Amino acid sequence: MFNEERRFEQPIRWGMVGGGRGSQIGYSHRNAAQRDGLFKLVAGAFDLDPARCQEFGINIGLEEQRCYPNYQAMFEAEAQREDGIQAVSIATPNSTHYEICKAALKAGLHVVCEKPITFTSAEAEELKTLAAEKQRVIGVMYGYTGFPMIHQAREMVARGDLGDIRVVNMQFAHGFHNEAYEEKEPGLKWRVSPEVSGPTYVIGDIGTHAFYLCEMITGMQVSRLSCMRQSFIPSRAPLEDNAHVMMEFEGGAVGTLWASAVNAGSMHQQKIRVVGSKASIEWWDEHPNQLRYEIQGEAPRILDRGMGYLYQDNEGVAASHIGGGHAEGYFESWANLYHRFALVFNATERNDHATVDNVWIPGIDAGINGVRLCEKCVESADNHSAWVNF
Amino acid sequence: MFNEERRFEQPIRWGMVGGGRGSQIGYSHRNAAQRDGLFKLVAGAFDLDPARCQEFGINIGLEEQRCYPNYQAMFEAEAQREDGIQAVSIATPNSTHYEICKAALKAGLHVVCEKPITFTSAEAEELKTLAAEKQRVIGVMYGYTGFPMIHQAREMVARGDLGDIRVVNMQFAHGFHNEAYEEKEPGLKWRVSPEVSGPTYVIGDIGTHAFYLCEMITGMQVSRLSCMRQSFIPSRAPLEDNAHVMMEFEGGAVGTLWASAVNAGSMHQQKIRVVGSKASIEWWDEHPNQLRYEIQGEAPRILDRGMGYLYQDNEGVAASHIGGGHAEGYFESWANLYHRFALVFNATERNDHATVDNVWIPGIDAGINGVRLCEKCVESADNHSAWVNF
Amino acid sequence: MFNEERRFEQPIRWGMVGGGRGSQIGYSHRNAAQRDGLFKLVAGAFDLDPARCQEFGINIGLEEQRCYPNYQAMFEAEAQREDGIQAVSIATPNSTHYEICKAALKAGLHVVCEKPITFTSAEAEELKTLAAEKQRVIGVMYGYTGFPMIHQAREMVARGDLGDIRVVNMQFAHGFHNEAYEEKEPGLKWRVSPEVSGPTYVIGDIGTHAFYLCEMITGMQVSRLSCMRQSFIPSRAPLEDNAHVMMEFEGGAVGTLWASAVNAGSMHQQKIRVVGSKASIEWWDEHPNQLRYEIQGEAPRILDRGMGYLYQDNEGVAASHIGGGHAEGYFESWANLYHRFALVFNATERNDHATVDNVWIPGIDAGINGVRLCEKCVESADNHSAWVNF
Amino acid sequence: MFNEERRFEQPIRWGMVGGGRGSQIGYSHRNAAQRDGLFKLVAGAFDLDPARCQEFGINIGLEEQRCYPNYQAMFEAEAQREDGIQAVSIATPNSTHYEICKAALKAGLHVVCEKPITFTSAEAEELKTLAAEKQRVIGVMYGYTGFPMIHQAREMVARGDLGDIRVVNMQFAHGFHNEAYEEKEPGLKWRVSPEVSGPTYVIGDIGTHAFYLCEMITGMQVSRLSCMRQSFIPSRAPLEDNAHVMMEFEGGAVGTLWASAVNAGSMHQQKIRVVGSKASIEWWDEHPNQLRYEIQGEAPRILDRGMGYLYQDNEGVAASHIGGGHAEGYFESWANLYHRFALVFNATERNDHATVDNVWIPGIDAGINGVRLCEKCVESADNHSAWVNF
Repeated sequence: MFNEERRFEQPIRWGMVGGGRGSQIGYSHRNAAQRDGLFKLVAGAFDLDPARCQEFGINIGLEEQRCYPNYQAMFEAEAQREDGIQAVSIATPNSTHYEICKAALKAGLHVVCEKPITFTSAEAEELKTLAAEKQRVIGVMYGYTGFPMIHQAREMVARGDLGDIRVVNMQFAHGFHNEAYEEKEPGLKWRVSPEVSGPTYVIGDIGTHAFYLCEMITGMQVSRLSCMRQSFIPSRAPLEDNAHVMMEFEGGAVGTLWASAVNAGSMHQQKIRVVGSKASIEWWDEHPNQLRYEIQGEAPRILDRGMGYLYQDNEGVAASHIGGGHAEGYFESWANLYHRFALVFNATERNDHATVDNVWIPGIDAGINGVRLCEKCVESADNHSAWVNF
Repeated sequence: MFNEERRFEQPIRWGMVGGGRGSQIGYSHRNAAQRDGLFKLVAGAFDLDPARCQEFGINIGLEEQRCYPNYQAMFEAEAQREDGIQAVSIATPNSTHYEICKAALKAGLHVVCEKPITFTSAEAEELKTLAAEKQRVIGVMYGYTGFPMIHQAREMVARGDLGDIRVVNMQFAHGFHNEAYEEKEPGLKWRVSPEVSGPTYVIGDIGTHAFYLCEMITGMQVSRLSCMRQSFIPSRAPLEDNAHVMMEFEGGAVGTLWASAVNAGSMHQQKIRVVGSKASIEWWDEHPNQLRYEIQGEAPRILDRGMGYLYQDNEGVAASHIGGGHAEGYFESWANLYHRFALVFNATERNDHATVDNVWIPGIDAGINGVRLCEKCVESADNHSAWVNF
Repeated sequence: MFNEERRFEQPIRWGMVGGGRGSQIGYSHRNAAQRDGLFKLVAGAFDLDPARCQEFGINIGLEEQRCYPNYQAMFEAEAQREDGIQAVSIATPNSTHYEICKAALKAGLHVVCEKPITFTSAEAEELKTLAAEKQRVIGVMYGYTGFPMIHQAREMVARGDLGDIRVVNMQFAHGFHNEAYEEKEPGLKWRVSPEVSGPTYVIGDIGTHAFYLCEMITGMQVSRLSCMRQSFIPSRAPLEDNAHVMMEFEGGAVGTLWASAVNAGSMHQQKIRVVGSKASIEWWDEHPNQLRYEIQGEAPRILDRGMGYLYQDNEGVAASHIGGGHAEGYFESWANLYHRFALVFNATERNDHATVDNVWIPGIDAGINGVRLCEKCVESADNHSAWVNF
Repeated sequence: MFNEERRFEQPIRWGMVGGGRGSQIGYSHRNAAQRDGLFKLVAGAFDLDPARCQEFGINIGLEEQRCYPNYQAMFEAEAQREDGIQAVSIATPNSTHYEICKAALKAGLHVVCEKPITFTSAEAEELKTLAAEKQRVIGVMYGYTGFPMIHQAREMVARGDLGDIRVVNMQFAHGFHNEAYEEKEPGLKWRVSPEVSGPTYVIGDIGTHAFYLCEMITGMQVSRLSCMRQSFIPSRAPLEDNAHVMMEFEGGAVGTLWASAVNAGSMHQQKIRVVGSKASIEWWDEHPNQLRYEIQGEAPRILDRGMGYLYQDNEGVAASHIGGGHAEGYFESWANLYHRFALVFNATERNDHATVDNVWIPGIDAGINGVRLCEKCVESADNHSAWVNF
């Protein structure tokens, strides 16, 4: 079980770009990274407004001189310090991820980046090459992959509990933007602005989360897909607020994906169902401590986090902060992920290849695949939903 | 509320083709038709084996001479009687529906037929023409459309409670045939034999049920679709045991359909979710007394059959046999449908056009649309899932 | 599987007292009794108004002369006929059950009676003695005990799947009478009138249902109890609209019972949870096709009606009318019970003791125990909830 | 929304007694207290073994000299420092709470204590008096009362949404100790040892949690109760592993409480249902982001944390760390509570009576009431469950 005690001799010195005052996502990163004592926030370029950045940084405990006006200044100044940052997290608008990631890698930093890491897969591949040259690691913040029951699902597939995988249904379909709220709340506008958000809205913003759960749990690769996307609020065009995808995987399995911001009345409704030749599993992010397990011919079972009947020898399954029965949530999933990032960043610096190979993280390939999903969905959808190879 | 009292002066004299000893579907028809005293079974050609037909018919109360060796004999003999049958239900293998329907209409009978009513839409159109000539009615046994909460859903859409319909997700996906059980139980073999079952297995067998719920609730027409179908048990090819469809509707809405017999561990999982610009509704056939209603920005509600807050002035909503709180099931839905068939058959004979127009039933157009769905899905699936116009 | 075919050479000739026009409970009896072809309704004293009785009886197919003005006339006239009734069902106000049962037994009839069969346990014991003398059977209409999953529960306890029973929590708590609706709808008034309803309202009306599920599933006997009862609508006093009971069973187990008509917002909420030393089971009458099964240390399972993993060799478990996945409801449970009553009535007449002993029914002892529960609860509640021996 | 930014000019200097290496509860306290930047851990007496205490304290960032061998040493030494602790949390075995609380108050410290704060209500009253003299605050760690949906429930009752409260059903009934696991795992033994645990096991350990939810939500006071308690594992006697309570409240409402450690197969099953004359609410700690709201005559609703339709002007309702749809859990509830403790401790030192009066916390009266519940349940249960005044 994880707690604040698990640590290296020294926590990883860590900085942030973006995520300042009022940012939920910024708070999520800071809470998660520092939860198990493995990262320590020492620098930040939290805000485009230098004064606000400084005020914020000091408020949360940073030294004044390590609150920087921009990421360039931070990377440069920290590189001069003996105790400079070793890793950085990026929680800025999508359009800036690529350049900041590149600069961070060039500065020799490990990176945790929000998805999408870039707008094009070519850029993402470039980051991958650069990271390899620099021997640095990019983690992508697929924040739902830290839940123990997702790791249980992955282990069950790996052990063959489900038999051959036949069908995967994915969805992340909320209703919070069923009207043009962005016209009243300009803060929401960026999500539907291609120059900031990228070539998609819901596919990239939420569809990639469910898609990555599939990739992580099953390891299957898409071979081709067809995508319909719509802007039910017309002013959002060309970006979609609803999309459906059918896909074929290498090896014969098939899948569907529904991403939506107009699923009226729904909260998250991020769900994944994996159907195998022997059994199926189903998971829902609003009740993340449970995993439904249905063996054909037997009574469906509700598996619960923290119980002895799970594959507790899988580190991801065991990665709880509290015993079963108590509800864990979103913050614990994020903390579990950052815990893993810390292990991998630290091991990379020590040339501990065994750890790097064995500790699973959502890395640059996960990032690339998400960008490719967006590209391919747009390619299909903008061509009358024609089937395209992945 | 319905009970056994509601009746015409005389119940409709009624016969059956198929549905003899050991047939669940035959029992379902007889129970439903006679539940409210509106039909009376007086003749049958229940079995290909004349002796078994007779034994069975007598056992359930028929006169010996009205237990016929085949439908031709029944239609001929009954036509000679003053008290001959007025209507017939057909519960035979799919491949025989077309010819028996045609013969029944020619004999001047109203018909209730299992779906698919034919193998081709051309045949189905022919039946429609013939029924019009003969002034007889064909009802199609979409047995789930009798549930009061489905009528509530339809009324809610009609009244605009959901706003404009944007997305409809349909599924009927069980796991009972996740292995090649038909090799051990030959009785299951017909479902995967094209010469008996028709050009599809799960699309026609179960997918059409969910598809018809959409049609009935929303009234929307498909404009084009793409279908993937698979035979995860290879010996079932060319018939599919799993299929996914994406569809566009006239007017801009979109939909998906999942039909499967290999959804391991699942019972029925017939579900439909209708998403509108203001609210969504969701219904599940395993808990048919409830309808989930989610208005964006409000707390989701669970509507229950029999309650005063429903649209009780809609006859279909009011069509209960017992008060709310008590669980009604599959048999009540069927009984409600047969109740409606009786009203329409009777009104047709009395040239009571108002009733014919006002009492909703799943009629020949419903049958045609289901056959067309199968045709179009096959056309798409067998052409690499290309999009086809509906 | 049950259907309309299962029958004796001749169905049991059967009459009804009460349950005429507009009576839901009357319809439920007729539907259930005739569902499997084992009873045939041939006579009735449905109404205190003879004309209305006759009109109703004829409408549902009886001969005019067998529609009687009252039960005395019916019992007398039918006794004279060679084809007179063999059994009678009683669906009249509670206050009349005792006298009608007594008359029926004296007339040599088998009886199915609504609960409570009497107002006092002394009267109930008297009926038991009379039935034994007359070699006739009294069935009590605990209508929920026909559900297959309840029989599965009983079989599981019998086989020791739960280990030793420790705790049973019972409830039947709806909200339909949270206000004094009876003041506007006089038809509801009888329930809270002691002279018609008896010494209790909710304890007898609904609490006995849940209590009997416990008795049937576990076989345990109460040794002592304490009861609180309230009239939250003061005009209902001395009858209660809410009651809680704690009880000790012979052998060391304990239980609780909540009966309520003021559980605002709730539908039935009839639930029972049986906790054993190894496992627990839980059942809910609004989703009666499921039974939750929780083995300590394993993942909870949802058992479904009709599945091969159930104890299908138990007749009650196998007593379905349709395959698994389809929802059965209240009417099927009643039909299953009447099926059993028929088997026992028939076997009794044939002196087939083996069948009588082996076919489980809710009989006179079930009726007596329910009456005693009411008596003891009143005794306790009206004495400041003092503990009383059962 | 809460995050790490909300703080005073300086966080409260804070120490811990107990909760060292391997303690889940210790980690929970530290995580919660420091989550929003309002407390800073600076001293601890974490362990009876001084070396282990020191190693642990240093590991989590304390200065060596502020890791104390026992609480007496800590209180004495810290009192000498200008920057000494202002508050202390106590996470030691039950039997020591009283003496440590007393010492802490005498040392002028604010206290957060695990329940039960004492073994007798006389001792608890003594602490209350002492706290008042010292002008210090005792918070009791009823950790579930930080959930926003519990505050929503409280606000709904206060505003009359439910009408008059009639019935409250409480339960906290898990199955983790359905066998005598303590014989194999001595670490569990203390729970069933009266000298450590106090006069009850499940009543005090978990029953008080559900009981306090009732007190907090409804504000009602018990007038008398009857309790049955059992030791289904006989070696646990005289402490109970299962208990049922019926209670009457001042004003006419009634309630039940079930506390159990032998509810085989169950996880927490901490639930509370509050029934009013107009509506009911129900909450379950395993899905803490939802609150079921059932208005009689309307469709039941599922309220979700973070939504605009909640009473967001209630601080407790608004006390989220992340937006709706994301699952919050146990740790956020604790953090919300510590946030409130900080506000009250700080305001007390500033003589800011308005804040002290307005910020709700589970304080010494909550602690007293829990101790009294245990006393009264034992008094009743050990006297054949006789009713006792509260």
